[in-house]
Amino acid sequence: MNILLTNDDGIHAPGLYALFEALCAEHRIHIVAPEAEMSAVGHAITLASPLRVGEVRKNGAFFGHAVTGTPADCVKIAIRELLDGPPDIIFSGINLGANVGINLLYSGTVSAATEGAFLGVPSVAMSLATRKDPDFRFAARFSRWVIQMIEQNGLRPGTALNVNIPALAPEKMKGIRVVRQGTARIKEHFKRRTDPRGNVYYWLAGETPLEHEDRHTDACAIQENWITLTPIQYDLTCDKELGRLQGLAVPRLTDF
Amino acid sequence: MNILLTNDDGIHAPGLYALFEALCAEHRIHIVAPEAEMSAVGHAITLASPLRVGEVRKNGAFFGHAVTGTPADCVKIAIRELLDGPPDIIFSGINLGANVGINLLYSGTVSAATEGAFLGVPSVAMSLATRKDPDFRFAARFSRWVIQMIEQNGLRPGTALNVNIPALAPEKMKGIRVVRQGTARIKEHFKRRTDPRGNVYYWLAGETPLEHEDRHTDACAIQENWITLTPIQYDLTCDKELGRLQGLAVPRLTDF
Repeated sequence: MNILLTNDDGIHAPGLYALFEALCAEHRIHIVAPEAEMSAVGHAITLASPLRVGEVRKNGAFFGHAVTGTPADCVKIAIRELLDGPPDIIFSGINLGANVGINLLYSGTVSAATEGAFLGVPSVAMSLATRKDPDFRFAARFSRWVIQMIEQNGLRPGTALNVNIPALAPEKMKGIRVVRQGTARIKEHFKRRTDPRGNVYYWLAGETPLEHEDRHTDACAIQENWITLTPIQYDLTCDKELGRLQGLAVPRLTDF
Repeated sequence: MNILLTNDDGIHAPGLYALFEALCAEHRIHIVAPEAEMSAVGHAITLASPLRVGEVRKNGAFFGHAVTGTPADCVKIAIRELLDGPPDIIFSGINLGANVGINLLYSGTVSAATEGAFLGVPSVAMSLATRKDPDFRFAARFSRWVIQMIEQNGLRPGTALNVNIPALAPEKMKGIRVVRQGTARIKEHFKRRTDPRGNVYYWLAGETPLEHEDRHTDACAIQENWITLTPIQYDLTCDKELGRLQGLAVPRLTDF
């Protein structure tokens, strides 16, 4: 299959290389990824400045395009400009750090997959639940099963698959669970500091769960050492609230 | 009521000032907005650099905090640090240009409202469907009704309200419709150019609808000159695909 790899940690990230190594023997791999790290950019795209595209080669086999933009930019320019046609699958990752719960909103890794789904390509985001000393080997092997699963069963149009892998040896993982995105609120605060010139600045800090999380969510399952699979969509409409609001009386516009 | 105003066009944008003018007589207004324009940043937040906060005063009455960050950053730092407590409502806008269909993913205006909803505050994004010669007066007056409506009826927890206003005199508008987000694909391409030094660069361009859009969507309704109201949520789980995937056979992890 033709597989497009991207990420938000940048084209030189070890997690991307681990995917490349795991998949390059069986598939035709295209790599289009940000030139530099682009974490927490969410679904940002670049409109106010143009994109530039460079080439990166490593160890003979690895060849990719490095884009001066966001993960969503990379998916767009890959499909619209750099590849001959849409790939069969888009794989975004392997991200350093879990993407669960509310973090899906901020994640460049996940947004690349959402963009792919919107462009009509079955798309996956994969993250490893650690921020230090990552061992991507199991997750990279697991990506082969995810691709086979999608090849056999497809993915519903309009959805992408968000996958999180515990940072453990496989025998210590509990198994695979298909779960919802967690929506429990988190506690966070800003650290207020003063620079050497006497000016105040703030760091966002201290993200910890504020509420009891439903057990059947990605956030809870990854803590309990399950691999999580969560189908996500880009139709943000809240159907329950839609029905309620449609029942409200609305004023005449000439009354304003 | 205590109302927090923000936007993605920056604290000096006329659309923000129009909201301030329409609401300041009846409500206590707090303004926390990006220092500079932040369009298409999506739900980006700033983690790799700290935020700085300046003060902006205009015409005696207007006072706001200008943040060196994204709209989502502004909402977070307003609630966590700058205000005495959460506001009663967050109002993001008035954006220059409609935010309908797939553009909700990229919109900083909408993401500020989503962030507000996540932080537990009823939140609204409002956009005017033009990019040139905007007349914000009707939209600003309409914001008063939106606030009354939320005051009387509430908003479902976990949802924000996305509002789009046609750039027309009110007698030319058809009325108010509560509609879904459109999900029709758009046609876009990249313009390839060469700079004076012979280097290639790309502009994202040419966004036009690719597919026939369902009539009962924001994208279609705004084109037909309706005011649109769309409740949106940050739980991205696709329930239909969740059920299907939960039925699939999964392998044992020791098989990898």
